[in-house]
Amino acid sequence: MSHPIFDNIRIVLCQTSHPGNIGSTARAMKTMGLQHLYLVKPDKFPDKQATALATGAADLLDNAIVKESLSEALTGCAFVIGMSARKRYLSHELVNVRDAAMQARKIAAFQPVAFVFGTEMSGLTNAELDCCQLLAMIPANPEYSSLNLAAAVQVMCYELRMAVLEGKLNVPEALELATNDDLERFYSHLEETLIKIGYLNPYAPKKLSERLRRIYARARLEKEEVNLLRGVLTLTQEPRKHTKY
Amino acid sequence: MSHPIFDNIRIVLCQTSHPGNIGSTARAMKTMGLQHLYLVKPDKFPDKQATALATGAADLLDNAIVKESLSEALTGCAFVIGMSARKRYLSHELVNVRDAAMQARKIAAFQPVAFVFGTEMSGLTNAELDCCQLLAMIPANPEYSSLNLAAAVQVMCYELRMAVLEGKLNVPEALELATNDDLERFYSHLEETLIKIGYLNPYAPKKLSERLRRIYARARLEKEEVNLLRGVLTLTQEPRKHTKY
Repeated sequence: MSHPIFDNIRIVLCQTSHPGNIGSTARAMKTMGLQHLYLVKPDKFPDKQATALATGAADLLDNAIVKESLSEALTGCAFVIGMSARKRYLSHELVNVRDAAMQARKIAAFQPVAFVFGTEMSGLTNAELDCCQLLAMIPANPEYSSLNLAAAVQVMCYELRMAVLEGKLNVPEALELATNDDLERFYSHLEETLIKIGYLNPYAPKKLSERLRRIYARARLEKEEVNLLRGVLTLTQEPRKHTKY
Repeated sequence: MSHPIFDNIRIVLCQTSHPGNIGSTARAMKTMGLQHLYLVKPDKFPDKQATALATGAADLLDNAIVKESLSEALTGCAFVIGMSARKRYLSHELVNVRDAAMQARKIAAFQPVAFVFGTEMSGLTNAELDCCQLLAMIPANPEYSSLNLAAAVQVMCYELRMAVLEGKLNVPEALELATNDDLERFYSHLEETLIKIGYLNPYAPKKLSERLRRIYARARLEKEEVNLLRGVLTLTQEPRKHTKY
């Protein structure tokens, strides 16, 4: 089940030279929940290297739409964003990929949006740029800014996912954190134990035990971990007789 | 010249199977301004496939530090972040890569920080996770979360660059935007022209011309573009006699 916003986003690759990059792009897209891949005049496609590099995303290649021109690939799109590795076309508004993802999210909630990627060697042509309303750039090292095509797609799709899902991790089971009561019982147990072993001064235990509390507070203990630590304290107070293990 | 924070960050790959992924990792790192690559027991390294895929980042491979154990690769690090594709180790704090980058940035301003990546097939072992203080995750499609190793490095390093440089694009020449005066002169010229050609009612020109103003306001015109448009207006009022072009 795809998110409805992702369903309104297409990734368009123009004149890709290496079929492997088409496969890696499909993989990058699918890991981020995107699925609509358009190919404008790919050098070789379908191709077994594309399939090999797509790994679990071969379905995106099967469903990829191949077109003879960029404008055909953009049919129905309300907003077209060109990816650029450098500032080159003075008349376009240029933003970083995070801003582009946020702008795209708003429009893709209602209408189709396209992200257009040029060739591996030279990016988008001027004619292709003329089809775009916004240019998006990955802020790269000025001394070496050449991201692999699929790596650029990965970063763009990652930002789209972050924009749509707000960075939420898909983590099923929540940890059961210790409650304040659990912690207070643990701290009392700890203090009592440390007095017993002569670490804390029973007449002025507070100073040191406050520092220890702070350490455990930072650790954000789970319920089970508190039980585990209290087990240590119990045995510190009354060591178990050694038996054969 | 590397940013001093980037100089305090190392990327550690554990037991990488495919040398090509080491090369792609070097490329991903360098595009984001990172340079310190550590390899723990790589299957094959150096290797010509690694060099081929590193393209312009072969210097990172030349300077890569190969170690027999993860703990040797982490010497001197004040903060160690493990990359995880899934929630698997209950006792670690887990954050998304954006949060991880922001935490890393603060510490790397003063002390070395490491990001640790496991094998392509199974990620980090439990023993490797025990060396980490934080787990970072790329929020991925739960139905297909398998990013290529170098793609994961690319996203992590991208977030580091965004955290350190705050998303600034390295765009050398600033555009010279039209000033308010330029725009007002253009709007007057436009209104005068549209009255002359009979598009605007000279007795009530405001309503339509305000809508036109809004269109040009959104376009955030450059100085040169205003000149260009005014050239059109001038010729609209007094067409040039056709000559041979």
